[in-house]
Amino acid sequence: MTQIELLKQGKISSQVKRVAQDEGVEETFIVEGVIKGEIVIPCNSTYNLSHPVGIGKGLRTKVNSNIGSSPDCIDYELERQKAILSKQIGADTLMDLSTGGDLAAFRRLARKSFSGPLGTVPIYEAAIEAIQNKGGIIFMTADTIFEVIERQAKDEVDFITVHCGVTRTSFDKLKSEGRVMDVVSRGCAFLLTWMLANNNENPLYEYFDMLLEIAYKYDITLSLGDGFRPGSIIDATDHAQIEELIILGELKERANLRGVQVMIEGPGHIPLNEVSANVLLEKKLCHNAPFYVLGPLVTDIAPGYDEITAAIGGAIAAGAGADFLCYVTPSEHIGLPTLEDVRRGIIATRIAAHAGDIVKGIKGAKDWDLAMSHARKNLDWQKQIELAIDPEVLKTARLSKPPHEPNVCTMCGKYCAIKIVEEAIKR
Amino acid sequence: MTQIELLKQGKISSQVKRVAQDEGVEETFIVEGVIKGEIVIPCNSTYNLSHPVGIGKGLRTKVNSNIGSSPDCIDYELERQKAILSKQIGADTLMDLSTGGDLAAFRRLARKSFSGPLGTVPIYEAAIEAIQNKGGIIFMTADTIFEVIERQAKDEVDFITVHCGVTRTSFDKLKSEGRVMDVVSRGCAFLLTWMLANNNENPLYEYFDMLLEIAYKYDITLSLGDGFRPGSIIDATDHAQIEELIILGELKERANLRGVQVMIEGPGHIPLNEVSANVLLEKKLCHNAPFYVLGPLVTDIAPGYDEITAAIGGAIAAGAGADFLCYVTPSEHIGLPTLEDVRRGIIATRIAAHAGDIVKGIKGAKDWDLAMSHARKNLDWQKQIELAIDPEVLKTARLSKPPHEPNVCTMCGKYCAIKIVEEAIKR
Repeated sequence: MTQIELLKQGKISSQVKRVAQDEGVEETFIVEGVIKGEIVIPCNSTYNLSHPVGIGKGLRTKVNSNIGSSPDCIDYELERQKAILSKQIGADTLMDLSTGGDLAAFRRLARKSFSGPLGTVPIYEAAIEAIQNKGGIIFMTADTIFEVIERQAKDEVDFITVHCGVTRTSFDKLKSEGRVMDVVSRGCAFLLTWMLANNNENPLYEYFDMLLEIAYKYDITLSLGDGFRPGSIIDATDHAQIEELIILGELKERANLRGVQVMIEGPGHIPLNEVSANVLLEKKLCHNAPFYVLGPLVTDIAPGYDEITAAIGGAIAAGAGADFLCYVTPSEHIGLPTLEDVRRGIIATRIAAHAGDIVKGIKGAKDWDLAMSHARKNLDWQKQIELAIDPEVLKTARLSKPPHEPNVCTMCGKYCAIKIVEEAIKR
Repeated sequence: MTQIELLKQGKISSQVKRVAQDEGVEETFIVEGVIKGEIVIPCNSTYNLSHPVGIGKGLRTKVNSNIGSSPDCIDYELERQKAILSKQIGADTLMDLSTGGDLAAFRRLARKSFSGPLGTVPIYEAAIEAIQNKGGIIFMTADTIFEVIERQAKDEVDFITVHCGVTRTSFDKLKSEGRVMDVVSRGCAFLLTWMLANNNENPLYEYFDMLLEIAYKYDITLSLGDGFRPGSIIDATDHAQIEELIILGELKERANLRGVQVMIEGPGHIPLNEVSANVLLEKKLCHNAPFYVLGPLVTDIAPGYDEITAAIGGAIAAGAGADFLCYVTPSEHIGLPTLEDVRRGIIATRIAAHAGDIVKGIKGAKDWDLAMSHARKNLDWQKQIELAIDPEVLKTARLSKPPHEPNVCTMCGKYCAIKIVEEAIKR
């Protein structure tokens, strides 16, 4: 029985209890959200996930960290360290996006190293196996795709990205309208290559019921991928992108009816004045399914600083109702991230999520800022370090710039505004 | 004769010519903007500023960098290097906020090292002189404040922050309503200490006409400071803040009538859903005077990463019509910034400004993103480096992660989505 089915029967799962406790909300709120498909708790039913996480309406905005090898970088120890660091500095979920080396080994390493929900993109493994074993993506089959999905479900994966909305029709629309960047989703690129060469429909769309059967069996959450997400702000909110979103909204309903949980993935590269509209569209067209966005990046011109371009878009998206932010690191558009890139990416994304939570009115969000403001007002540096989103960074920075007077900082020294005004009022 | 007077007589100043050329707009557009007080070109009339800059309606959003000593950090060479770096990596203006060592020496160093408009906050020097020469801020006099302002005008300063809206009445409002953080502006703290101890009104408000006479004589632009800006998102958009803004709007009209240019300073710490309203209020209450914001920081909990919290607020503010962003570095709330902090602060703020310019429809803004997207589509890395907001960082990062195939990157290696789709379509 899947969680949706269980909850419909009035039973409270241990996952719901944990999520309600972590969020400080009533269990019934979570139960109703999951049944309606407005909240997901990605959690493979074949094992005990240590730390289940709720994603969706009324809950704290969650942050996903990505790890994974590429053909150019196959380093098991580095990816293991990224997984551990991700949890340490506050990522809620982890995706293993490996495309180089022993993919199953990387996946199991990710599983062992992270206690929260784990996600993957099975089409990577299906495509790469076809290339390695048969000489090309075009020799992939619908059966091998579903085989890989089931294999990954058996490896205790909690959610999978599946690009079910990439169809022949919507790709034709993309071509006829024209785009600066065509397709920037790797999963979509693999699928399209196969579809065009074989003159076939996307099996993840055509045989969506087969996908649902596997998802049902292991109770894995489907993260319906946006293969046609814009890769340039110039392409944002175009025909192909919205056509795909409409399809995903229809599939969401079918999945929920089958007792399968669904979230919807979103862009990508979007000018900041289009971000809120994109969230609204997703909420309307996909019936309030949790929205999982990558960025959005509000400009294309800042490689090396894309944790910042994504934090701008992510904060606006979260404030407008996006539920789940995929981190973007400074290394996006440059190469595979380093450990330091991972740290910066997660913190920037957590800042965006929290800035959104203040606006959403999430329980405790503003209290955090209030506590920090009190600590600042009291010139209580120990408390400021404890409350900082990255205590280590503040502690180190503070130690590297010790002021002459212990309670101020070196920016103003003895001319600290807070201190001066405090004394002036007291006098 | 001031620029406003000159332009009213139908003459075109060399500054207007340079700004029109830099922005790619008609000279008449600049002339009308300056006359209406919707654009400022800060430019002291007693010398030839190498690189005049226009700030305001219809122009590219500008970025200010701050340098300056504190009692705890007196390092002439470091501040000189910050000034030079600021120009190199794209700051439009520079403010010298020194409060430690020989203030005049720091100011002249800043002037020599930066070819764009230079700003200062004269109340710092007036207060510190009173402390050093007479034993306390309370021994400052109205005369010494105006003396210092004229002294700084003679040192070729182009704009000055003056906290003219800090009045006895608005401070009473602040106290009676209550605030988490009271006052976080150093200039306001100095003024209030003097006002409360001497039971006097703020001389910059009471004798505003004297201030205008000095500003007129040297044609320096007044940047009307927001002494009551919120220092916590909890205090945002409150009575004291808006009361001060109303006063600044009145003073703006008086200054423009006297032929003096004015911009208005804004917060500070603001939740992201209040940022646009703050810009609207400024534009309405201050009759479309250029708006110069510090951040805004959309959360208080991220010391060490405040270039990011500020980029989020700054991008939204710029998109909503703010004209001028004061940079915030990772070191804000921790101490005086290092050179690396300055670099990160300026780039983050430039990203925010550009994200806003895309929304404003500033000439050429979207073209930059389009050119970068074309370079990405063509896997043209040399072009991407040339177009990047920080070419050096991209170049170094790219060299540190060389891919096996020269035209892709190490994130996907040979599985580059752009490359795969290109090949699939061609087939």
